[in-house]
Amino acid sequence: MELFTEENATRVVQARNTGCKDARMRQILDVVIAHLHAMARELEPTRDEWSQAIAFLTRVGQMCSSQRQEFILLSDTLGVSMLVDAINHRREGGGTESTVLGPFYRAGAQRLPMGASISKDGRGEPMRVMGSVRDLDGQPIAGATLDVWQSGPNGFYDVQDPNQPPFNLRGVFTTEADGRYAFTTVKPSSYPIPDDGPVGEMLKSAGRHPYRPAHIHFVVGAPGFRPIATHLFMVGDPYLDSDAVFGVKESLIVTPQRVWDSARAASAGLPAPYWEISYDFALAHA
Amino acid sequence: MELFTEENATRVVQARNTGCKDARMRQILDVVIAHLHAMARELEPTRDEWSQAIAFLTRVGQMCSSQRQEFILLSDTLGVSMLVDAINHRREGGGTESTVLGPFYRAGAQRLPMGASISKDGRGEPMRVMGSVRDLDGQPIAGATLDVWQSGPNGFYDVQDPNQPPFNLRGVFTTEADGRYAFTTVKPSSYPIPDDGPVGEMLKSAGRHPYRPAHIHFVVGAPGFRPIATHLFMVGDPYLDSDAVFGVKESLIVTPQRVWDSARAASAGLPAPYWEISYDFALAHA
Repeated sequence: MELFTEENATRVVQARNTGCKDARMRQILDVVIAHLHAMARELEPTRDEWSQAIAFLTRVGQMCSSQRQEFILLSDTLGVSMLVDAINHRREGGGTESTVLGPFYRAGAQRLPMGASISKDGRGEPMRVMGSVRDLDGQPIAGATLDVWQSGPNGFYDVQDPNQPPFNLRGVFTTEADGRYAFTTVKPSSYPIPDDGPVGEMLKSAGRHPYRPAHIHFVVGAPGFRPIATHLFMVGDPYLDSDAVFGVKESLIVTPQRVWDSARAASAGLPAPYWEISYDFALAHA
Repeated sequence: MELFTEENATRVVQARNTGCKDARMRQILDVVIAHLHAMARELEPTRDEWSQAIAFLTRVGQMCSSQRQEFILLSDTLGVSMLVDAINHRREGGGTESTVLGPFYRAGAQRLPMGASISKDGRGEPMRVMGSVRDLDGQPIAGATLDVWQSGPNGFYDVQDPNQPPFNLRGVFTTEADGRYAFTTVKPSSYPIPDDGPVGEMLKSAGRHPYRPAHIHFVVGAPGFRPIATHLFMVGDPYLDSDAVFGVKESLIVTPQRVWDSARAASAGLPAPYWEISYDFALAHA
């Protein structure tokens, strides 16, 4: 076998994978090796820069806990998560555009009756969210579930904020025959991603801010359909075109309407005025 | 500003670095983003594969401790460490070829008189190592230091093996006016890199073995010269052409000679027969 040199490095390292029994694994290793080597050849890092890169990745790993996933944050802030999402959404055959799941999803939120509120502490400006879940032909989907979560008006999720009740601003709704859904929440706020770790340092040294525009998270699924993880963003948010994790899509920006009509407010169980947004989700068959 | 799409992703993410004040940092970020995105476009990872990659990197970070640097091991086994080393050695203007420092260097080894033994437990076949340290014109360098370390005949370094005395098989030697050095040790053995972590799993799934050919580590330096970190490898080792970390260079392979002459053995303070290797190091001016 050939010994490693600067010139033949990539070929020599890839040649070690010839004993790999899993063709996909071999392809992944070959492509990862090719790009890591190309990166080193383009950047020609000093020994000290390489040590700093190793130390950075180590700190990213060591920042991870049951409450914090710093490698997802790194992937998010470098646009890799959204690129993987976009590639998969294209291959999955359409429907409502998807976006990052984010690190604050929590399984086990309460199933709530249609129209119920997900706010357990009543803090914030009341907002009603309504619409339908349909297939790609526009037919309503019965029994679709919407798993919904968001941060409070202070920008924190329940899991980050000891002043919020557990599972505040989380709930699961199921559509009936007409495919329609509705629930009440509070108007979300923009907020910084956790920036007290190595990813925050990276953003700082890149001259980037850590903010995400205000949004509500959804995972929408139904038997026989591909689930989608997405957000609805609020029009006019100052961070819409500079989301720290690149999650915004034109098709996911909604315009909250101020509703002053007291009869309509009463039928929604809300005080007037309140905010209202309407959005129809479309799912592709699995 | 433009919103992120699959097509414009790389440009949009790189555009966020325009506020970066450090030109080198900006170049690093731009190149890393370009290659991470190119990797994602070539591989089109499923969402599940991407999660597995995140989980793998997280485990690599969490395996790191004061005794173990799994990210260096990952860099080593993918040939990145040796490529960075080769690039830097080229730029540093020659001299003895360098190789990976490895994770088992330990500062603070004892300064020993010329010719002394670094074996504290006497286990293994005795071996004398001798030669000189010279500049690129062949002139001897006085006051050059050789920081030397190696694994025992069982393949373990002192820090991995509670049965070895602390700082076993480690020592620092300083050349005199003639630039010569000599010390006694034991013949090193090939050994596996630590393979009970995520890097070991990767090697297994790639169908690769974790072995390194037998070697002695050196950091050789002198005032006014660029220090080099290198190894000497033993000719005939079965892993010379498949070193798990790609560290072997033709110019670093030495041929141990069996010495039977008892007068010569006595003058080296060793029983006959013993092994002897001879190697001259060359340092470039700083």
